[in-house]
Formats: sequence, C-alpha cells, structure tokens
Amino acid sequence: MNGTEHRKAEVRIRVMDPDNTPASGLRVKADQISHKFLFGCGAFDTVWMQRIEDGERKAFLQDRMNKWLGLFNYGTLPFYWGGYEHEEGKPNTEGLMNAAKWLIDNNVKVKGHPLCWHTACAEWLLKYSNEDILKKQLERIQRDVTAFKGIIDMWDVINEVVIMPDFDKYDNAITRICKEMGRIKLVKTVFAETKKYNPDAVLLINDFNTSESYEILIEGLLEAGVPIDVIGIQSHQHQGYWGKEKLDRVLERFSRFGLPIHFTENTLVSGDLIPEYIVDLNDWQVETWPSTPEGEERQANEMKEMYTTLFEHPLVEAITTWDFNDGCWLKAPSGFVHEDNSLKPSYHMMKKLIHETWETHEELTADADGYINLKGFKGGYKLSSGDKSAEFELNENAEITLRLA
Amino acid sequence: MNGTEHRKAEVRIRVMDPDNTPASGLRVKADQISHKFLFGCGAFDTVWMQRIEDGERKAFLQDRMNKWLGLFNYGTLPFYWGGYEHEEGKPNTEGLMNAAKWLIDNNVKVKGHPLCWHTACAEWLLKYSNEDILKKQLERIQRDVTAFKGIIDMWDVINEVVIMPDFDKYDNAITRICKEMGRIKLVKTVFAETKKYNPDAVLLINDFNTSESYEILIEGLLEAGVPIDVIGIQSHQHQGYWGKEKLDRVLERFSRFGLPIHFTENTLVSGDLIPEYIVDLNDWQVETWPSTPEGEERQANEMKEMYTTLFEHPLVEAITTWDFNDGCWLKAPSGFVHEDNSLKPSYHMMKKLIHETWETHEELTADADGYINLKGFKGGYKLSSGDKSAEFELNENAEITLRLA
Repeated sequence: MNGTEHRKAEVRIRVMDPDNTPASGLRVKADQISHKFLFGCGAFDTVWMQRIEDGERKAFLQDRMNKWLGLFNYGTLPFYWGGYEHEEGKPNTEGLMNAAKWLIDNNVKVKGHPLCWHTACAEWLLKYSNEDILKKQLERIQRDVTAFKGIIDMWDVINEVVIMPDFDKYDNAITRICKEMGRIKLVKTVFAETKKYNPDAVLLINDFNTSESYEILIEGLLEAGVPIDVIGIQSHQHQGYWGKEKLDRVLERFSRFGLPIHFTENTLVSGDLIPEYIVDLNDWQVETWPSTPEGEERQANEMKEMYTTLFEHPLVEAITTWDFNDGCWLKAPSGFVHEDNSLKPSYHMMKKLIHETWETHEELTADADGYINLKGFKGGYKLSSGDKSAEFELNENAEITLRLA
Repeated sequence: MNGTEHRKAEVRIRVMDPDNTPASGLRVKADQISHKFLFGCGAFDTVWMQRIEDGERKAFLQDRMNKWLGLFNYGTLPFYWGGYEHEEGKPNTEGLMNAAKWLIDNNVKVKGHPLCWHTACAEWLLKYSNEDILKKQLERIQRDVTAFKGIIDMWDVINEVVIMPDFDKYDNAITRICKEMGRIKLVKTVFAETKKYNPDAVLLINDFNTSESYEILIEGLLEAGVPIDVIGIQSHQHQGYWGKEKLDRVLERFSRFGLPIHFTENTLVSGDLIPEYIVDLNDWQVETWPSTPEGEERQANEMKEMYTTLFEHPLVEAITTWDFNDGCWLKAPSGFVHEDNSLKPSYHMMKKLIHETWETHEELTADADGYINLKGFKGGYKLSSGDKSAEFELNENAEITLRLA
C-alpha cells in the first residue's frame, strides 16, 4: 500500500507544432495544473460571501476563499435541512446555487452535505406523522437533487446512520422514522430516491463511527443492494490525532469492500485537546479556544502524516478537512488559517504537499519525431513552449498527440 | 412488558369419568408437570457421565445430573469442532448421541452448540485452503445435523460473528474464511446448509456482543434473507451483574425484530468479580476462585431479578445458565451447586421460581356438566382424581374434553 506510484500515470505524447508538423527536438514544459485526487475543505463561507452586503466583510471572505482556492479543488456545501429550509416550503436554493456556481467557476468540484440526517434537521417536521416525514424527506431529495443536477453531482446521501435510531439527545423527525423503518430500509429508500433524480451522481454514506458497527452496516447495505459509490469516514480529532496505527486499522477495516473511500470531515486542532471523558464533542462548550505555536507545529506535522498515509492508500480518493479557518465548529483552532485569515503552518505544509510533493512539473525535449514521455501525478496538465501551449488530462497510461497553439 | 400473564393460558375442560360420562361435581387436582418456557443449563457433564468407567465418579455425576433435572427442561450440549472431531474424520457422534438421548429420556429438550465458531475450532483445518475449509465446514454441518435430526432440532448455527473476522488472538480456520467471505455471506451459507438438512430445526445466531454492532448485523442478515429463528444473547457476568437497566436496554434493542430471544449463556458468580480492565475473560487465569457466603446470597438475588425480568418479557423463550456447578469455565463459582454437588442458595431460589412461583397447581370441582376452568402457566399438566388421571398440554386458550383413566 505504500508509495504514490498508483497516483501517477505515464503518457507518450507526440508534440506537434502549430502547423501540425512534429516538433522535433523542441524543449517543452509540462506543468500539472489540476489534481485528480480531491483535496477538499468545507466551503460554507462561499454561501455567506455571495449573500453578504457589507463590503468590508465581503472582501474579507473573498480573501479567505482566495486562500482556500490556493489549496483545494473540492468543496463541501451545507444542505442541513433545518438551515436550508428553515421555514417549510422556502428552501435557500438560490443561496446554495450561487455558492456552488462560484466554486465551479473556480474549478472546484462540489459535494452537497447531507440529504438525510437526524441532527440539524428541520424543526417543523416534528408535527407530521412518520409516514409524512418520510414523504417529505423523499420530496426534499427529489427537489434538491433535481435542482442541482449538473452543478452538484456528489452527495452525502445520509449521515451517521449507526447512531441514528438510538440518538436520544433530543426528539427529531429522522430518528423517529429510522427507529420505525430500521437502518437498512431507510438508507435503501433515500439512496434509491437520490439515484432516481441523478443516476450519475456519486453517492456517499458518511459516519463518524469507525468501529465494526459501521463496517457491518455497510456490509448489510451492500448485500441489500444499496448503490453506495463511496464510503465516507469522518475523522474529527478534537481529542487528539488518531495516529498512524489507528488510521491504518480504519483503512484496513473499510477497504475490504473495494469501494472508494473519502475522508469527509477531518479535524486536527492547533490548541488544547478535548478531554477523553467527553463522549459527544458538542458537549464541549468553551468561551475561547486559542491556537498555540506548539499546537500549530503539531497540527501541521499531524496533517502531513495523515494526508501522506491517506494519499498513499489506493482506495482513498478524497480528503476533506472540515474547517478552513479557526473558530468554526466548537470554536476550535481547527483551520489552515486563523480567524483573521493569516496563514498557519498547516496551510504552508498542505501547500507544499499538494503543489510540490504531489504535483508534477517537468522540462522535456521532444525527440526527432516529436515524442516526449511523461510520468506524473494524475490530473490536468499544460504543455508549453514559449507562448504556445496545449492542455491535456493525465488519468491513465496513454499515447496522445498534442498540437501546440 | 410487566407481569407474567402472557406466560399463561386458560382452558375449559369437560372432565369425563372412565366410562365417558361427565364427571359432575368431581373434585380434581390440576398439576403442572412441565414448562413451555425453556429453563436451560449447560449439560456437558452428561457426555462424561455416559462414558466414564470409574463407578464412583459416575455416581457422582449421576447425582449432579439428578439435581440438574430438579431445575431444568432444556440442555446445551458441546459440539465445539476441535473437541468433537479432534482427529479429522473421527467425530464423537456416539458420545454426544448417548448424552442427547439420556437428556431426551429425561424430558429435556437439547440444543447443539455451535456448528460454526472461530474459537475451540479444529486445529487440523489450518492446513487447508479457504475453499476447502468452507467445504469441510459445510460437510460438518451436513454430517452432524443429519445424524442428530429428531434428537437435536435446535442449533446455535454460528457463534460470535461480530468479532469473527477481527479475532486476532490466534490464527484459526473460521476467522480466515469469515475475513474472506464477509460476515453476512458466511452466516447465510452456514444457515442455509443447516436448514437444508433439518428444515424444521430452530436455528439461532449467538453473540456476547450486545451493542448496536450485533443489532446492525442481525438487521443485515434478516434483510439478506437469513432464516434466523431465534436471537441468542450471551450474558456472562463475571465482571458483575448487568443490572435491570442494562437488561432492559438489551431487551429493547433486540426485541425490535419481533423474533424470539434466548439468553443462551448466562453467568452470575458467587465470589469475587473479574476486574473491569480485563477485556477478554479468558485472560483471567486464577488458581482458585472461591464461592463466599455473601457472594452466594448476591448471586441468588441477582438470579431472581434477572430471571424475573426475562420471564416477564414476551419475546424471551429461554434462559440458559452456562455452568451447573462451580469450578467450570475460568474456575468461576458460577454454578447452582458447589463442586461437591451441594446445593447453593441460587439452586433453592431457582427451584422456588420454577416450581412454585411460575408453576400452577390447583384443586377444582367440576360443575354439574363436568366442566372446570383452569388458568395456568403454559406447559404440560396432569389432571387427577384419586388414582385416575389424564394429561394435557396448556399452551393456548382452548376447550377440551378429557377422560380420566
């Protein structure tokens, strides 16, 4: 499982001059300009950035998102039912559409999160019968998946199913129907509905539970024919970095299905850790949670080890760190930038990994027949010589012809 | 869920004299002589008792099993592959058959335990490929289920599946095939094979894991069409009595499938408890483990509360306490009798529950047309008057006619 060879491909390119003759002996630059691997982050701020009227605040968020774009090609947008449709029948489709389009315009792939979850759910559902809650859940999926088709083609269909029917912190509509239907029937139903309205979308199941409970659930779902495309694994590590051993164990546990794995919600903090005795992280309520210099070093080093371990695993296709900036969920110092947008060591570390260690830039000379051989990390490339260039995708071993223009 | 009303049935009996005329005004005794509810215990000693040559030791075991019969109507016999077929091709069919027949002759229902398990498995399987291990597992099921059909019609088909593929204390054949096939496919395969050779047998899945992992596994298995008749729950409480709260939680978790529940392996000790930090009970190796007077009081009281809670739950159909006598597994003081067969308070407590509290004995007078009405705990009854009698089963509300003879 080691090494990054599986992240690379080789291409034999016949380089042609603008007049379509072989560019014999031409000196060319091959620069990777995008990644196939999904380096992701929460992109919730794009929603506010699009909407906000205050010019100063808007500029601040634009600065933040520009820094975000310096690292990531993949963003998660919030579709929590309770926030997205706070008042029944008035979904914030426009706000999310603007955010999604801004990301796409900036070459960022977008995932919607989540279509079904017991937390952050709509309060107004509670007045309905279980039958009607399920009906509204499916209508919600139809409406939102249809509206965003072609813009958002990747969905966290359902979130945290392991605990869903047992969740007892407060009454909510989704726990009610999960308790009645059972986990497998509910998951099967919401996946089928999502697939129905966007058959080509990439559909994830997502959970923070990484024990054999989640593994057994996935096995049951696959046996029941649920079209899970990707296994989503949360890794909020507010209580301390898992370490390589646990990471390897989790990878081993969930790779036995042969399905792609996404680390969907990663957190590593650059300050104090939440004590072990806290079971639900939401119970950790603090006034402030400072980032410290030692914490920032630690965070950057843990990021490096974790991202490297995951990038080297053949089934991992995406890693999303949850917070881009400090002070979001639980006020944690969990970002790549401070609250004032200044860069942290983790930002520099990630930039080095993504844009140096795992990115290919080469200078090559075409042979007498115009051929060059390039081996590089999968993604988009620009081949250039002086002011002439051509772009291509390197996702598998291939032979291609490229005319510079 | 409270009370024991659901354990009872009512019958209107027309009592007839031997000459087949209504026994008008006859005074009769109705005595329950057997229980529908399965009060079970490990019956491994019947295997040794049948085989042993030493007369004194045999008499000692016979005395033990006579005391056993004073409480129980349901026994578990050991089919651990490693012990049952220590040498490939030489299964101890005869030994187990003798034991099973002795139990049946004494009106005891017998369960075989287990057909597939990673622990106590045959060493000689390790030399085979996974394909051959599975083949031999299925042949073993065919052979043993067929041989005992009509004698043993209740099987723990597979044991401890939650941990099965992750079990890493030592290499074993069953973990190997479970890892390769996945839990659901293996369970499905061994259940199908058992069903094939004894379609009317009662088939159990059994586990010590009582978390949502086991619940999710069962849901997946049922969705996959595995013919589970009974959910088996182990409750070895060497580390202390669960208490009513946990018992209620476990009952709630596993009753949502609507399937019968058996408590298959119950232990409550009458001495020191194994400390909390021990995870695998097999790691607790002691020279001696004494039973204490306070421990015996505690054990009897815990037995009373636990059996009462389970007996009152409509889906529980059997409770098996694992050890009849002290000094068996882990040398624990876990029995109803001491090692010398002397009775412990838990024995007296169980006798009172089974043969007084939950057993019906009534005196009734037939009306002018010979009718009596009886409401009692489900099971077998003897109706008698002087030296004339008749037997009947009371398992549901009914009207019957009985001729005394």
